[in-house]
Amino acid sequence: MTTLRTPGPTLGVVGGGQLGRMLAEAASPLGVELIVLDPTPECPASLVARDQIVADFDDEAAIRELAERADALTFEIELADQDAMDRVEEETGVPIHPKPATLELIHDKLVQKRELREAGIPVPRFRGVDDADDVRAAIDEFGAPVMLKARTGGYDGRGNVPVESADDAEGALDAVAGPAMVEAFVDYAREVSVIAVKGDGETATFPVTETIHQEEILRETVAPARSGDDVRERAREVALDVLDLMEGRGVYGIELFETREAPRDSERSSGRSSRGGGEILLNEIAPRPHNSGHWTIEGTVSSQFEQHVRAVLGWPLGSTDLRGPTVSTNLLADVDEPAPAALAGVDRLLEEPGAHLHWYGKAEARPLRKMGHVTVGGTTGESLDGLLERARSLRDVVTFS
Amino acid sequence: MTTLRTPGPTLGVVGGGQLGRMLAEAASPLGVELIVLDPTPECPASLVARDQIVADFDDEAAIRELAERADALTFEIELADQDAMDRVEEETGVPIHPKPATLELIHDKLVQKRELREAGIPVPRFRGVDDADDVRAAIDEFGAPVMLKARTGGYDGRGNVPVESADDAEGALDAVAGPAMVEAFVDYAREVSVIAVKGDGETATFPVTETIHQEEILRETVAPARSGDDVRERAREVALDVLDLMEGRGVYGIELFETREAPRDSERSSGRSSRGGGEILLNEIAPRPHNSGHWTIEGTVSSQFEQHVRAVLGWPLGSTDLRGPTVSTNLLADVDEPAPAALAGVDRLLEEPGAHLHWYGKAEARPLRKMGHVTVGGTTGESLDGLLERARSLRDVVTFS
Repeated sequence: MTTLRTPGPTLGVVGGGQLGRMLAEAASPLGVELIVLDPTPECPASLVARDQIVADFDDEAAIRELAERADALTFEIELADQDAMDRVEEETGVPIHPKPATLELIHDKLVQKRELREAGIPVPRFRGVDDADDVRAAIDEFGAPVMLKARTGGYDGRGNVPVESADDAEGALDAVAGPAMVEAFVDYAREVSVIAVKGDGETATFPVTETIHQEEILRETVAPARSGDDVRERAREVALDVLDLMEGRGVYGIELFETREAPRDSERSSGRSSRGGGEILLNEIAPRPHNSGHWTIEGTVSSQFEQHVRAVLGWPLGSTDLRGPTVSTNLLADVDEPAPAALAGVDRLLEEPGAHLHWYGKAEARPLRKMGHVTVGGTTGESLDGLLERARSLRDVVTFS
Repeated sequence: MTTLRTPGPTLGVVGGGQLGRMLAEAASPLGVELIVLDPTPECPASLVARDQIVADFDDEAAIRELAERADALTFEIELADQDAMDRVEEETGVPIHPKPATLELIHDKLVQKRELREAGIPVPRFRGVDDADDVRAAIDEFGAPVMLKARTGGYDGRGNVPVESADDAEGALDAVAGPAMVEAFVDYAREVSVIAVKGDGETATFPVTETIHQEEILRETVAPARSGDDVRERAREVALDVLDLMEGRGVYGIELFETREAPRDSERSSGRSSRGGGEILLNEIAPRPHNSGHWTIEGTVSSQFEQHVRAVLGWPLGSTDLRGPTVSTNLLADVDEPAPAALAGVDRLLEEPGAHLHWYGKAEARPLRKMGHVTVGGTTGESLDGLLERARSLRDVVTFS
């Protein structure tokens, strides 16, 4: 039985970017305090967190200090050092959620895909590659184009190189510069995402969200996804299957492909027909709140951030019910080179009925860096197409000067 | 034209209680930083504010320091020192909203009622009293019972003494112990409240809210109020008339009576009929976000706290549209004497679908002190009566141990 006191429970968070900031915004009403560990002084989360420990993500002494000041630990970046966290958890007895071991599964995309396939999760066809011959063999097997992916360290499309033909194999490997794998190109109708939550003996999923990328960076989310009911239900099932494999409580962002033609790109041969929609294939897993779930702050009863706080502390989960159709758009820095952050034209955003601005408080704008987001909707009545158009036009009136 | 930078604009807030805390929670997504001034170290707002200046509310040097570190000042307590703020505004050029002069109007209830009446705002009948003879004369004039009120310093019913008969006049005056006034007893059908916002050349009102008091302390709010449409519209009109008299931007909580029988208790003699509902009379004005508007965090598109941030900075106001019927209930400390804050039974609150917990982070529970609140609703479909019942049963499962 939970008793709330003052000060409330303290959550130590490795990483203090926008995810940490929105986590702190959601934690405060629950009486939960945050301390974040981040190497950047005055990191985004530091504004609303109780305190920041300025240290590198793999600074074990600093992680230990964080644990000693907290009731539970979590992380909001995948760069968090798994081994250091494992040792700190063992030494201090302060629980870490999700379990650091989850990062191991996530870190190496080849290991991840193998384990997922073994567990019966539908994934695109893939193979590990050591050299150009392997890449060419993959093209022979899957057909061109294929996607060459760095096994580790990829983020926002970094480390992903499309290979159009066998002639490009060498160059693509040079670009990835490290251990790599090849995935069959997925001819998807749309990309969707499920934010899933693992609580203390319970799970929850948020409404399936459509994610629109450009240059492999998330631009907009549309919720609920404009897929058929059966496709959305299938996405939810796959997400829950993935959740089963994850160790430790918390929010997981599960990115999926909805294929255009069902059987071709799947390793699964369940013989399941796909009337009215495509097959669902797993793309990526993030063991933390995810960009594709930011819309839940306004769009669902409890947000992904509130759910993460509840889950990590072992509290009952909240409701993930939809409030109304919701669209979010990222505010990416449209700058050519790093510059102090300055977003002009904000009045237009602020005066738009039902638009919600989220500014992350990053000091420096860098090309295509995520600086904030805008959400419209969350009330009933407006069509998703209308909301998407409105969100895009709002995004286009603001500029980084 | 507004440009957002990092660090964003800084709001200096005199007072750092729960209102300051919820202001900081609303400011963060907008990229607005808060510094609060409060005499209690680790005051509720300090968790989410950038910084706290530990100083008394009337410490002029501290208010000057606050101004020097801020782009604009505001206050969240009526104890803020008007003269000190006036001088700081003049010396530093940092704008203060609402204007400190507003506090003068609010501080002395007799002055306030006179000015409001003069401006045509409907108020209960009243008169200033110097001694027991004056109180008895008021009873003769208005009929018993009457309400004896301290002219200054009243809060949550403190300083309000009902006088049942002429015999009680002396005792009531002793209880008030200071300059006083008498108001006619208002036979109200319900109490309602309008949160009104004065922006830069624009105004906005939130949906009219029903407020349920016990022992003159707010217990629940029901939004929208269960009054007739014409009564709600009349309440909005009165609120806008009051807003006209207020100096400076910001959110104002305007508490009103909806009378049972229209003409009797009114000084207004407009001859306006009141079919389907009562007359609206002004009760109190708070020049700040108000307890009766906490439900707007979940219940409207922009909350009263977001609106206050926008208004004080001179930014465009947001939408005050209702998301859905919403009920809030205060969590008052049910303790007999001061004790460390500890709220037991929180699990039941957390697992209730659509319930939102707000814990203020006060270290000490004192009898009937406001320690937090719970909001249910904010989505469509549920009746206000059902929501109210649900909110009350949730409140009753938690206890201060």
